[in-house]
Amino acid sequence: MNVSELRLRFANALARIRATKPLVHHITNYVVMNDTANVTLHVGALPVMAHTTEEAAEMTGLAGALVLNIGTLSPAWVDAMLLAGRRANESGIPVVLDPVGAGATAYRTETCLRLLGGLRVAVIRGNSGEIGTLSGAGGVVRGVESVEGVANPAAAAGVLAHRYNTVTVITGQRDIVTDGGRVLVVDNGHEWLTTITGSGCMATALVAAFAAVEPDFLVAAAGALAAYGLAAELAAREARGPASFRTALLDRIYSLTPEQVAEGARVERLRQP
Amino acid sequence: MNVSELRLRFANALARIRATKPLVHHITNYVVMNDTANVTLHVGALPVMAHTTEEAAEMTGLAGALVLNIGTLSPAWVDAMLLAGRRANESGIPVVLDPVGAGATAYRTETCLRLLGGLRVAVIRGNSGEIGTLSGAGGVVRGVESVEGVANPAAAAGVLAHRYNTVTVITGQRDIVTDGGRVLVVDNGHEWLTTITGSGCMATALVAAFAAVEPDFLVAAAGALAAYGLAAELAAREARGPASFRTALLDRIYSLTPEQVAEGARVERLRQP
Amino acid sequence: MNVSELRLRFANALARIRATKPLVHHITNYVVMNDTANVTLHVGALPVMAHTTEEAAEMTGLAGALVLNIGTLSPAWVDAMLLAGRRANESGIPVVLDPVGAGATAYRTETCLRLLGGLRVAVIRGNSGEIGTLSGAGGVVRGVESVEGVANPAAAAGVLAHRYNTVTVITGQRDIVTDGGRVLVVDNGHEWLTTITGSGCMATALVAAFAAVEPDFLVAAAGALAAYGLAAELAAREARGPASFRTALLDRIYSLTPEQVAEGARVERLRQP
Repeated sequence: MNVSELRLRFANALARIRATKPLVHHITNYVVMNDTANVTLHVGALPVMAHTTEEAAEMTGLAGALVLNIGTLSPAWVDAMLLAGRRANESGIPVVLDPVGAGATAYRTETCLRLLGGLRVAVIRGNSGEIGTLSGAGGVVRGVESVEGVANPAAAAGVLAHRYNTVTVITGQRDIVTDGGRVLVVDNGHEWLTTITGSGCMATALVAAFAAVEPDFLVAAAGALAAYGLAAELAAREARGPASFRTALLDRIYSLTPEQVAEGARVERLRQP
Repeated sequence: MNVSELRLRFANALARIRATKPLVHHITNYVVMNDTANVTLHVGALPVMAHTTEEAAEMTGLAGALVLNIGTLSPAWVDAMLLAGRRANESGIPVVLDPVGAGATAYRTETCLRLLGGLRVAVIRGNSGEIGTLSGAGGVVRGVESVEGVANPAAAAGVLAHRYNTVTVITGQRDIVTDGGRVLVVDNGHEWLTTITGSGCMATALVAAFAAVEPDFLVAAAGALAAYGLAAELAAREARGPASFRTALLDRIYSLTPEQVAEGARVERLRQP
Repeated sequence: MNVSELRLRFANALARIRATKPLVHHITNYVVMNDTANVTLHVGALPVMAHTTEEAAEMTGLAGALVLNIGTLSPAWVDAMLLAGRRANESGIPVVLDPVGAGATAYRTETCLRLLGGLRVAVIRGNSGEIGTLSGAGGVVRGVESVEGVANPAAAAGVLAHRYNTVTVITGQRDIVTDGGRVLVVDNGHEWLTTITGSGCMATALVAAFAAVEPDFLVAAAGALAAYGLAAELAAREARGPASFRTALLDRIYSLTPEQVAEGARVERLRQP
């Protein structure tokens, strides 16, 4: 696939989300639930949050994708994540993992490794410190922020992608997306994204919506990040600060057209050594 | 009551909320807590969230209305809902139920039926799929969205209203409000409401605020929906997308006057066969 | 310290937050989590939420300050608060307590007294009713609102400050900050703050960020309130209602400069009898 083909795939995926309105089941953190529900709705999918073992697996069975986000974790939620994840795996529903704060505490790191070990994860999306921690390449996470990235993000992502047979995404100034073989770089985005909480979680929610309609998860993840970054670029024009940026970001995700994605996606393939 | 009288009752209810600032106790879902707290505050009431069995009933005892919203349920929260609901029933405090996602999973449907069976519910407000499911009239819910409504919403609502002796509300393009005998239709609203998460939950929060001051719950529910829809119509003029619409919606709920409600409420009585 | 010196200390504290990006660990309520995370980020610190006993203490060990906010309490969260608070005490990390709704239910009042009794609390910030309740001076809390303040706020705050050796803050039209000896009054702020949920919780979050960099907690608390109030004054110019005010408030916290604080802080020392 060359860049033109990729852009077209991204645009088609967005169009397909709008046409089919896939249900995206989120087991996610309290801080960002409202934002990620809205982002899911604005891009054209249907969000639902259901976190108790009494219904998590049943809800997943109805969904087109499952988000597992460990931002505010507790043991009961991990149980629900495992149940929902297994149901997703049985039914061929893609699981998208957001390892919020992996590396900051042992509990977060261990939970991520447990989820990665026990489930087939379609895509894992984190910052440089989180993915660095999980890959063993290093990186330092303070709270939920990457305060020290890895020297070679593509290599760290590749290690994780190989080990768990999962598309691995490191978002940052340049977003890296790899399945262990192919490596895509997405350059859409805006620095305002670093000023709001949950910007990574919203990216993950969009990756899930795209993965619900695009079976090549490398393409799905890169397409979601291009769309998100593009909306951020448009939103930046309306921003008077981080909160008005966030409002504009959500507005622009809603109004983003497949045509804008086809024209504005800045993606390239990285040559591997 | 004719339409002019209804509009006046709606306006008076809003004025009474502003004058008496009733406490509205919400046991509700994580996704919308911030929005529903703000909507309660902006309309003139006082919101409080308290979900643990250690204090739920005591908090309800201080309140003018109780919201039970099952959007992100777990067994401990259901226990608190039942305790709080019983206290509300003992003290004559109206209980307003939002059956978010009833029909999507067995747990949600069963919990709603358990709450309806164990408590006197003043008003139940849902979408067409949720009320259709609970009434047995059909309807399909995917996640929390009604993807297939019932053929005759007023009839489905009437069945539920009769069975549980509760005012039943189906919100949609036209809002149906019935106590099993009288049927009101409210035509205020705007399609932007369908683009944001929690728009139904916010409607429920307003119904509770109105029910705290208006003992005819049919009038309370219809008045809340007229006020909400009117605020949405005003907000639509400021919207550049769903998020700026939401900001404007909250702003306009705050600034809405009883006079605007008396003039702008679009309500009619439906003749029953 | 005279007023000019205080203003300079406030400005320096803000500059130090921006320079050192302290981690602020919040164990807080569901309603305001998104707002308090954003406020923490916008002022220049790093927020993290972690509420389970499996990781709460470990996360606190990495932090520059710990917020304990009882707005939506349950026993498991109280356990985590105590564990995290003890770790904070062992490591000299300031603990900032927000007694949301103390006085409304026995559970909230008792939990606050338990936290105050079991932990060294650097700053407690509440409204007049909450602090009045905890000090024994009276005051009435309905839900989370102070519906009847105490006759002499500075005296009530002083009692609590003495009893628990903690800086005590009552926010209101005039903010009172006392360590039992010194009393500061901060007059920044805007009445729009009373129209949004979580405005007190956001103040508490900022107090924690300031306490992470300013070891005189009286100065830290007063500085945070001056900065917050100043941002509110600036935001009021952009407000068309409470929700657009909130957006502007967050925007202005982000853009607030140490120079603006040095010039705009309205603080004075109250002469004690």
